[in-house]
Amino acid sequence: MDSSKIKNTYLEDTIAAVATPPGIGAISVIRISGSKAISIIDSVFVGKEELIGVRSHSINYGKIIDDNGNLVDDVLVSVFRNPHSYTGEDSVEISTHGNPLISQKIIELLIKKGIRTAEPGEFTKRAFLNNKIDLAQAESVVDIINSRTEVSLRGARNQLDGVLSKKVGELRELLINASSFVELELDFAEEDVEFIDKKELLQRINKIKSEIDKLLGTYSFGRVIRDGVNVAIVGVPNVGKSSLLNYILKESRAIVSHVPGTTRDIIREDVSIDGILYRLFDTAGIRISEDEIEKEGVLRSREAVRNADVVLFINDTEQKFSFDLLKEIETLTSTDKIISVINKIDVPHETLEHADVYISALTGEGIDKLFSQLNQKSVGSSSYSEKSAVVSNVRHYQCLREAKDSLLNAENSINSGLTGEYISVDLRNAEHNLGEIIGEVTSDDILNNIFMKFCIGK
Amino acid sequence: MDSSKIKNTYLEDTIAAVATPPGIGAISVIRISGSKAISIIDSVFVGKEELIGVRSHSINYGKIIDDNGNLVDDVLVSVFRNPHSYTGEDSVEISTHGNPLISQKIIELLIKKGIRTAEPGEFTKRAFLNNKIDLAQAESVVDIINSRTEVSLRGARNQLDGVLSKKVGELRELLINASSFVELELDFAEEDVEFIDKKELLQRINKIKSEIDKLLGTYSFGRVIRDGVNVAIVGVPNVGKSSLLNYILKESRAIVSHVPGTTRDIIREDVSIDGILYRLFDTAGIRISEDEIEKEGVLRSREAVRNADVVLFINDTEQKFSFDLLKEIETLTSTDKIISVINKIDVPHETLEHADVYISALTGEGIDKLFSQLNQKSVGSSSYSEKSAVVSNVRHYQCLREAKDSLLNAENSINSGLTGEYISVDLRNAEHNLGEIIGEVTSDDILNNIFMKFCIGK
Repeated sequence: MDSSKIKNTYLEDTIAAVATPPGIGAISVIRISGSKAISIIDSVFVGKEELIGVRSHSINYGKIIDDNGNLVDDVLVSVFRNPHSYTGEDSVEISTHGNPLISQKIIELLIKKGIRTAEPGEFTKRAFLNNKIDLAQAESVVDIINSRTEVSLRGARNQLDGVLSKKVGELRELLINASSFVELELDFAEEDVEFIDKKELLQRINKIKSEIDKLLGTYSFGRVIRDGVNVAIVGVPNVGKSSLLNYILKESRAIVSHVPGTTRDIIREDVSIDGILYRLFDTAGIRISEDEIEKEGVLRSREAVRNADVVLFINDTEQKFSFDLLKEIETLTSTDKIISVINKIDVPHETLEHADVYISALTGEGIDKLFSQLNQKSVGSSSYSEKSAVVSNVRHYQCLREAKDSLLNAENSINSGLTGEYISVDLRNAEHNLGEIIGEVTSDDILNNIFMKFCIGK
Repeated sequence: MDSSKIKNTYLEDTIAAVATPPGIGAISVIRISGSKAISIIDSVFVGKEELIGVRSHSINYGKIIDDNGNLVDDVLVSVFRNPHSYTGEDSVEISTHGNPLISQKIIELLIKKGIRTAEPGEFTKRAFLNNKIDLAQAESVVDIINSRTEVSLRGARNQLDGVLSKKVGELRELLINASSFVELELDFAEEDVEFIDKKELLQRINKIKSEIDKLLGTYSFGRVIRDGVNVAIVGVPNVGKSSLLNYILKESRAIVSHVPGTTRDIIREDVSIDGILYRLFDTAGIRISEDEIEKEGVLRSREAVRNADVVLFINDTEQKFSFDLLKEIETLTSTDKIISVINKIDVPHETLEHADVYISALTGEGIDKLFSQLNQKSVGSSSYSEKSAVVSNVRHYQCLREAKDSLLNAENSINSGLTGEYISVDLRNAEHNLGEIIGEVTSDDILNNIFMKFCIGK
C-alpha cells in the first residue's frame, strides 16, 4: 500500500452499524468490523459453540443476551474472517427480527463492550484502505446504491467491476514507463546518454493524452447516466404542457417518483425512459410579468430553463407559433439544447411552422419520436458497453483534466528544449493525477469528501 | 402433525420476498424458501462452487447473472438446508447492495425461474406448518416486529420463547388426562366401572378452570403491554393541557412518534413511559357547542374520552374546579378510569378542591406522581416476569374464554348427573379451544387471519 494512504488508531476501532434500510421489516442486519468483532460478539452471544472457533463464512444460530442476562433477540450470526470479508477485517453480521428497537438495543450493548458506531461509508473506506477495492471502485458503491434507473445501475456496476480503474491503471503504467526513461537520463546526466529520443517521448505522451481525451469524452454521457437529465417544458398557456407531461408519465416504463412542486409554479416529475432518468420541470411560462406573485414564478421558470440539459419548447396547432417566447428561451440556453414541439396535431389545422417534432399528447402520435430526440440530445450516440470505461464522476473528470494539462505542459517543455527535470515534474504530476482517481495517492480530505456521501452501514 | 393442519400444493411452491425494510440502505436481503430454493438460485448464481454442494449454514460469495448473461449484482448467498432453517424447508438468503432496483430485478429473475412471491407472513406460516414453532409463537413474531416499547418487546419475546404455549399445553394435557378417564368409562359402559369418581373429576376441572382464570386475568395487562394505553387529556380552556402534554413529551424517556392531528381538534402524541406506550389525545374540550365547526371537534373529543383507557381530567389553581365538565366526562366513561389533576400549583393559590394529583407543568412538580398513577390505572399491580405466561392477544383471550365456558358446561353436566357422553363433549370442546391457541387444531380461516397481519418477507 502506498504510504500516503491514511492509517491511524481510529481505523483500528471495531465498528458497528445497522446495514439494512431504516424502518420495520422482517429482518434487520447489523454489521460489525474490526479486530475485536468476533470476540466482542462472543461476549453477548450464546449459541451452540463460541464464534471464536467457527469457520469463516458460517452462519450461527443463537441468542443475544444483555448484561442482566435478559434475552434481546434470537439471531443468525455470520462470521467472516480477515482477509475474507468486505472490509478485509474480521467481520460479523447479526441478522435480527426487523424491529428498530432491537437493533438499537444491540448496538447499545455493543457500544458498552467497546465497539463504536461506524461513520458513513466507513466499511467501504476500510475495504479501500485494506486494498480490497480501489478508490474508483469504492466510489461506485454509493452510485450502485443510489442508482434510480437500470442504465445508471449498469454504469455503476461497470465501475465497481473495475473497468474504469483498469483503463486508468494502464494509462498510468504507460506514463510511469515513459517517465522512467526521462529519469534514467537524469541519473546519467553527466554521461549525456539519451535513453529515449524526444520524438518517441512526444509520441508516447501524445498517445496517452489521446486516450485521456477519449475518457473525457465519455463524461457527458456518464454524467447523464449517473445523474439524469434536466428537462424544462416551456410554452405559452394552453398549448398542452401538462397534457404532455401526463402522457409521458403514463407512457414511460417506470415512474421513478412524483416530486411535489416546491413552488406553486413548477411541477417536477422524475421518469425513466429507456433506462435514463429524466427530471421533467413543467414551467408556468417564462415571460416577464408585472404581477409580483407571477414574477417569482417567472424567476423560477427562467432558472429551470438555465439549468436544463434539454428544453422542450411547446407550441400547438391552434395558436401562432410563439417566436417571441423562443427568442426569450434562447437568451437563457443554447440553441442546440432546444427541441421545438408542435402539439395537438390530432386537431384539424392549417399549414404549420417548422418544428423538430409534431405530436398529439391526446393520441400519443409522435411521442416516440419525441423520446428518441430527447435521448439524442441527452446521450447523443453514446451507448453503454460492458467493456468500455466511462467517466461519470466529476472528481474523476477533474483528475483527468489535470492529467491532460500536465501532459500538455510536458509536451511544451520538450518542444521548448527544457531539461529533463522539467519534463519529469510534468510527467510525475500527470501520474499523480491519474493515481488520485484509483486512490494510489490520496489525502484525508479527498477520502472524507468521498465517504461522507455514503449511508451509514455501507 | 395434526391432520387438521392445512397442506396443499400452494405450500409446495418455492417462494421469495425482500425481507429487509423497503428503501435504500447498505444491504438488502432476499429470502427464498421451498424445495427448489437451492437449485433455482444455482441457475442464476455463479460462485466458487455450486450451491447444491455447499454445506448448510454456509455463506457463498458470487454473482447473480441474468438470462442475457449480464451481471445483476455481486452477492452473498446463505444456504440453509431442510429442516435446519426458519421455515423448515431448504432456504436461501441473498444479500445484495441495498438498492430496491437490484432486489426487484432479482425477484423478477427468480419469478422467471419458477419461484412465486411470498404472501405476507408466509415464511412464518410455513415454519408453523412444518412444526418449527406453534401458532402462539408464530403470532408473537409479528408482535416482536411491531413492538414499539421495551416492555411490549419483552412480552412478545416471552411468547416466542413459548412461555404461554407451554402453559396452555400443560393445561391441555391435564384436560386430555381427565377426559381420558371419562372416555374409558364410556368404552366400558356395559361393565359399569367407574374409572374416576365425580368428585375428583370436578376437582380436576376446577383446577384447570382456575388456571385459565389466572391467564384471563393477565389479559388487561397483556393488552396494555402489547397495544398501549389510550389517554384522553380533558379540561376547560387555559388550564394547561398543552403545557402538560409538552412537559410529558420532554420528560418521557423516548418519544415514540409525533402523530400529526388527524383533525384540527385533537392532537395525538405517542410516548413511552417506563416501557409502556401511551397514546396521548389532547382534546379541545367536550362541551356542547352551537358552533358547527366546534361541534365536529366536540364529537371527536367525546369519542376520545369513550375510547380512553385513562382520562386525565385537568383543572388549574386559578379557575373554579369544573364539576360540570367532570359530570359530562362521567357520562362517557367509568369513574375508575379518571385521574383528576390540578395544574399550576407553582402559582400562589387559595385552598384547592380535592384531586388525585397536584402538578405544575411549568416546574414538573408532581409529574412523577402523575406517571405512577397513569401506570397504576393502566397496568395495575401486574408486572412482567420472564417466567409467567401473559395473554396479550385477543384471539388467545377468546379461546380461553370459550375453554372456560366449556368447562363450566362440563361442571354443570356432571352436577346435573348427565351421562359421560355429555361430559366428554364439553371436555373435548375445552381441549379444542386450548388447542386453537397453539395451533394443534386450526382452520384455513384462522391462519389467513393471523398471517395477513404480517409483513411480506417474514
